[in-house]
Order: sequence, then C-alpha cells, then structure tokens
Amino acid sequence: MAIITLTTDFGEKDHFAGAIKGAIYSELEEIKIVDISHSVSPFNISEAAYIIQNAYSSFPKGTIHLIGIDSELSPENKHIAVKLDDHYFICANNGIMSMICAEIAPEKTVEINIHDRVESNFPVLDIFVKVACHIARGGTLDVIGKVINTIKPIKNMIPFVNDDYNQIIGNVIYIDNYGNVVTNIKRKFFESVQKTRNYEIFARNTKFNKIFNKYSDIIDFTKEESKRDVEGKGLVVFNSSGYLEIAIFKSNLTSVGGASTLMGLNTMDTVTVNFLN
Amino acid sequence: MAIITLTTDFGEKDHFAGAIKGAIYSELEEIKIVDISHSVSPFNISEAAYIIQNAYSSFPKGTIHLIGIDSELSPENKHIAVKLDDHYFICANNGIMSMICAEIAPEKTVEINIHDRVESNFPVLDIFVKVACHIARGGTLDVIGKVINTIKPIKNMIPFVNDDYNQIIGNVIYIDNYGNVVTNIKRKFFESVQKTRNYEIFARNTKFNKIFNKYSDIIDFTKEESKRDVEGKGLVVFNSSGYLEIAIFKSNLTSVGGASTLMGLNTMDTVTVNFLN
Amino acid sequence: MAIITLTTDFGEKDHFAGAIKGAIYSELEEIKIVDISHSVSPFNISEAAYIIQNAYSSFPKGTIHLIGIDSELSPENKHIAVKLDDHYFICANNGIMSMICAEIAPEKTVEINIHDRVESNFPVLDIFVKVACHIARGGTLDVIGKVINTIKPIKNMIPFVNDDYNQIIGNVIYIDNYGNVVTNIKRKFFESVQKTRNYEIFARNTKFNKIFNKYSDIIDFTKEESKRDVEGKGLVVFNSSGYLEIAIFKSNLTSVGGASTLMGLNTMDTVTVNFLN
Repeated sequence: MAIITLTTDFGEKDHFAGAIKGAIYSELEEIKIVDISHSVSPFNISEAAYIIQNAYSSFPKGTIHLIGIDSELSPENKHIAVKLDDHYFICANNGIMSMICAEIAPEKTVEINIHDRVESNFPVLDIFVKVACHIARGGTLDVIGKVINTIKPIKNMIPFVNDDYNQIIGNVIYIDNYGNVVTNIKRKFFESVQKTRNYEIFARNTKFNKIFNKYSDIIDFTKEESKRDVEGKGLVVFNSSGYLEIAIFKSNLTSVGGASTLMGLNTMDTVTVNFLN
Repeated sequence: MAIITLTTDFGEKDHFAGAIKGAIYSELEEIKIVDISHSVSPFNISEAAYIIQNAYSSFPKGTIHLIGIDSELSPENKHIAVKLDDHYFICANNGIMSMICAEIAPEKTVEINIHDRVESNFPVLDIFVKVACHIARGGTLDVIGKVINTIKPIKNMIPFVNDDYNQIIGNVIYIDNYGNVVTNIKRKFFESVQKTRNYEIFARNTKFNKIFNKYSDIIDFTKEESKRDVEGKGLVVFNSSGYLEIAIFKSNLTSVGGASTLMGLNTMDTVTVNFLN
Repeated sequence: MAIITLTTDFGEKDHFAGAIKGAIYSELEEIKIVDISHSVSPFNISEAAYIIQNAYSSFPKGTIHLIGIDSELSPENKHIAVKLDDHYFICANNGIMSMICAEIAPEKTVEINIHDRVESNFPVLDIFVKVACHIARGGTLDVIGKVINTIKPIKNMIPFVNDDYNQIIGNVIYIDNYGNVVTNIKRKFFESVQKTRNYEIFARNTKFNKIFNKYSDIIDFTKEESKRDVEGKGLVVFNSSGYLEIAIFKSNLTSVGGASTLMGLNTMDTVTVNFLN
C-alpha cells in the first residue's frame, strides 16, 4: 500500500489538512496518509526544507511526499514533482527541494501542467492531491508535467570556508522543539575541513571546544548527582540528522529555557568554527 | 473500509484524542480514523461549525464525523446524530450542525438515547464512539435515537442585507492559521446582491474595492521584485471555501503579523459591503 | 493488525515523529500507528505518565506503546520494555512506568540490550522502533533484553493521609487543555478514607465541599439561563480518569481563563481534603 506524507504550514487548527486527507481517501481507498508536520512556520521555506530532508529517508522507497508551503501558483511560483532517491516530492518550486537536491541529484523533475483554467487558491487540494494519487496509482511524472533541469535554490544554506581553510562560518537554519539551535554545518563537511585539528566554536557570546556524541555526554557520571551542575549548561553535538547543533541539556522553552532563548540565537545567526594549528 | 473523522477541542497534549482512537479500534479493527482538528478553541461552537463544514465534503460519502465540542449531556444539551449529504455527524445539539444544515437539509436527525444510567463526563468516549461504530457497521440511526425535526441554531451566522439592497453587513466568523479573517459572506450570496455593481468593503479602518481570486493576484508581476511593495498589504479574496476573507499577503502571526492582528479584527467584528449605483 | 501508539515530547513541528512513523512503516507494512500525544512538556516524566496511563487501556490488548520522553541512553537511564495488562510499553526507565505499575503489576519487565556499539542521540528511532516492530511481529521480550524486577519510581505521585485518617494531602499532577487541575487523589482512594463523612477541599484560597459527577452539575437548570451565574465558577469533579479535579465550568485558557490560571494552581501544588466527623 502506497504512503503519502504531508508537510505543510496549515497549523493544527484549520480544516485544511483534514480536507486534504479526505480528498486523498476519496480518490484512493487503499492508501496510508502520514502527517510529518503541519506546524512549519507560515511561508518558511528553510524550515520546511530541513523538516522534509530529515524525515523522508525513514520512509519506504516509493513514498510520495506532499509539501504544502507557499504553494499558490503564480508566474514566479510553479509547481513541481521530483523523483529523487526513489522517493517522490510534490511542492512549489520555491527552494524547498534545493536542500535535498544539494546532496542527492534528482532522477527526474517535472513542472506540473495539469492545472485547469480555473484559478485555485488551495492548490494543495486542487492540484497536489491529484498528482500524488496519480503517482500512487503507478503513474509517471511525464504525464503530469514537462521535464525541467534546474530548480530554485535557497540562499544561505551552505556554510562558508575561508581561503586559509581554518575557519567555517555557518548559519542557524532551524530551532527545534527543545530550543536547540541547528546550524547548516554537517559532520562530514566539518570533518573534511578539520582533519585532526582542535577547534573553537563561537555562537554569539559562548565558546565551545568540544563536540559531544549525545546530550548526556556532558554529565560526569562519576560525580554524585547533586554535584554535577549541568542544568542549563550549553553544549555542542552533531544531532541525529548529522548537523552541528548548540543545545542545552534537558532544555524546555516554557520553563528553564533552551539554547535559542538562553544564548539569544535566532535563525540566520552566524556560528563560527576556528581550527587551531 | 469506513472512515471516522475527529474534530474536537481536546488540544494536542491531553490523552483524550488518543483514548478515543483506542476505543474505536477496540470496537472495529477495520476502520480508518482521520484527525480533522483537535485545536478548536475550547467550547467554541462557531469555530467547530466552520471547520467541519469546510472539511467534511472532501471525504467519501458514508464518512462518519465525530465532533467533540461542549458535548457533556445535560437537560439543555442533548446528543444528536445527523445524516446529511450522505455523511454522518455525531455531536451535541449545541449549534455546531446549524451552519451545515443552513445549506443542505438533513436527511434524518435523531436525538441519541442509548445513554446508560451512569452519568459520564467523557461522553465522546462513552457515547459518541459507540454510535460511530454502530453506523460504521451499517447500523441505522433509528436504532440509537428518536427522530427530531429541528436542531439548535447558532446566532449571527447569517449576514444582513438592508432594505435598499445596497449594503451587506457581515461578521467575522473565523481567524485562520495565517491570521486571515474569514467573514460569513459567501460568494454566491455576495454576487446575488451585487449584480453588476461596484462596491466598497469596510473592515474597521480599511477600505477595499476589489476582490481577488487568489492571494498572489495582489502582485504586479510586470514590476521588478524589489519594487513591488506587497509585504504586509491587505487584500480581499473569496477563500477556498467560498467565504469573503480579509488577508495579508504571506502573513505570519508570529513575525510580520496577519490581517487579524494588523487590522485589529476579531471574531464577531463587523465587515460591511456597500454597493455603488 | 498490530497497533503501535506514540507518546513523545517531540512537539508538533519537528521531523522526529514523522521519521519514527516512516521507520516503522519501513519495517512493517501492515501496522497501525496512532499518535497519543507529541506535546508532552519536554522531559516531563509525570505528564507522560499521566497521559499514557489514561490512554492505553482504551486500546485493544496487545497494543504496543512507544514512549519517547527523556530517552537518551546513559549509565543512569536505561531502556526498558514492559508487558502489563496485556499491553506492551517501550520507554526509558525514568519513572514513566511507575504510575501504571503502582496499580497493576507488570507481567514482565526487561532492560533492553540490543544497542549497537554506535552511540545514538535518537534512541526512539534507533532502538525503540526496532523493539516495537519485534514485538509487533510476535517476538518475545526475552530476546531483546534481560529481565529486571524493579523499575524507577516517580516521586510525589501518591497522596498522603494523616495518622488520624481525617486528612488527605494530595498534589496537582496535571493541568489539562481546559486549564483544569488534576490531583493525584483517585476516587477509590478518596472513598476508602472518607467512608460516609462530609469533607472540605482546599485548593490554595478556595474551599469546596461538594464533588460533582460531571461539570454541568454546577448548573441549576430550574433557573432561567440569564440568572444562573456559573461562568468562571470553580467546581470539583472526579474526572473521566477517576482523579479528583478542580475545574472551571466552560473554561478557556486563552479567553476567560481556567482553574489553573484563575486559582493560581500549578503542578506539584498541594490540595488538601479535611474529613469532618
């Protein structure tokens, strides 16, 4: 049974996500629909790109990912369907796919051209559902669009390395539910620049010189619990998606705070790594 | 396989929605359960009415819609099951169904009478699930209630037209995830009053004289992107559900704001349309 | 078809819950995945314990409950799988299971030992999914862990009774979506101490001497609606899960307020019952 996932900025309250699911079940009785997220910040392309990149590959090959962010059709915002890594993605050509495509080349990308004459202000319902069901029934991309060779990029998603190869300047690309601050510096990239050197990581006013494998590595378990003093302490890890992340141990944005609030870090802020000789 | 949808004010955190799903699966293994919304504002009948009205018709005929808002049984709040448009609705008789019923006459409405002697403070679990599963198994409404002919109305859901037929006074009935402000003025009704006349729309201090087909129609694509100046600009559209809506292009309530916050519009506020001769 | 439920503190936005679902479907095509909650407050063991306790028993026997709260493996935080009441629970041994286990003795508890050498900072994906799918396929607990006989307790979950047996001192353990304040005093326990005596219940500055069966019992339906004056009035009920709860009739935290905000009650606050002779 095919799977269709949903990633949107519709929020948890409105009828939009429900309507989408109803429309899919009206076309296909035998289908699994899986919510990835409906709480992407409105029109936030980078957030959507980060979420879909880190969720999609857990799904079985052949899964169809419907992404409803900033998807109104306009002369500058076309709809695309992409086959990549044996998964299918349906979204607007607004940069969402550029993060995934930077790592894995698409097998095929088409610009969707099945739009009716009637203009729609709910294209996820009126267009994306049709395309998703077409693919779920085994249809090909060529039937619903014309092949294109480039997609729209997102700016600022790639960290900068200086000429001397001793500094990486990255950016914050995502703040997660715990307030942890995710940068665009991936482990593989970091290590390719690092070689065997030591380093200092600067995030606003805080300096780190160690990257942990997991959050609880900050704890010295040989000490008594009352003498550990790790609450609210910042740390750096490569997160489960492989990104360099600045975190607070057991953070909670609504009580003790998280790395984003305690260190004053926001999306697009700079995080710098200096390598020491 | 039958579908049961859930629309409640249980929120995203509590165990209530999970318990409902468990109870349904305990009665029926072969069933699809679809969340429409659990984030209706507590006890907000109008919001629930708007959400279910705009979600239900995407689902296949025969779908059973369970609506858990203000559903505690009392002498003045009875439980009903409604067959309408080949869909089934189970809810309290508190006005939720009046919005749908104003457009499509119910085939049959029953007041549910299968309650045990034991009083319940979780009737969605104790009563609605039983009724939903009864219907999903092919049971009839007559078995679980007695036929009634009227249901409780919601106030202020119908816009007012003046005697001269040159003014519509509507109300805001819903604020969506983007802060867009939905009125109770539907396109069909608007056009029946308008005929071919021009018009002015007043929402608090803002005047509009154009209704767009979609949000991006506010953009003049012949201009360079930097010279367009549409960010934060208000506009009027008929939304995807056919309601007159006051919107902000690419709004975001947590950053740039939305129509509701920028124009100071709240639920029940007045929106006026003057037709010009 | 087996059911796997998810209860986590991942929130509604991040990719974590989506990735989990994808990983489960990648292992097992024929499985039902049901969200119980992803909005547990970060690292809040008590909340998670309350939610899972009150959701699990609605599900069919054999259901597998995956609980992802504070689940990073450490020398002091091991992973366990518990069979109890013919349900399976997979979580960290951090107290989450102690609330359920206080009422029903587990049939079997194992400490999971299938961890790879590689350290994971996403054990719900890397370990819990594997264990859940193993059980869903009919596998036994013995294969994935070694039997243990005690689990870690949560503090302050059991109310105190004085030596004279005329006072119960309980605590607030949960605030629900309506702002209703749930204590750890269960009906059965209350009644076993009460016998036939009258009582006074003190919650901060408010005194109650009656416990209702349902919220609307506060209304005197013989009075005209305009003369009832129940809005914002506090009341005490045994809630649908059997816990003594301090509530406000038709409360709404974002408008009129709820019991938690109006009476200034927070988690861990004391609620006292005095029995009168």
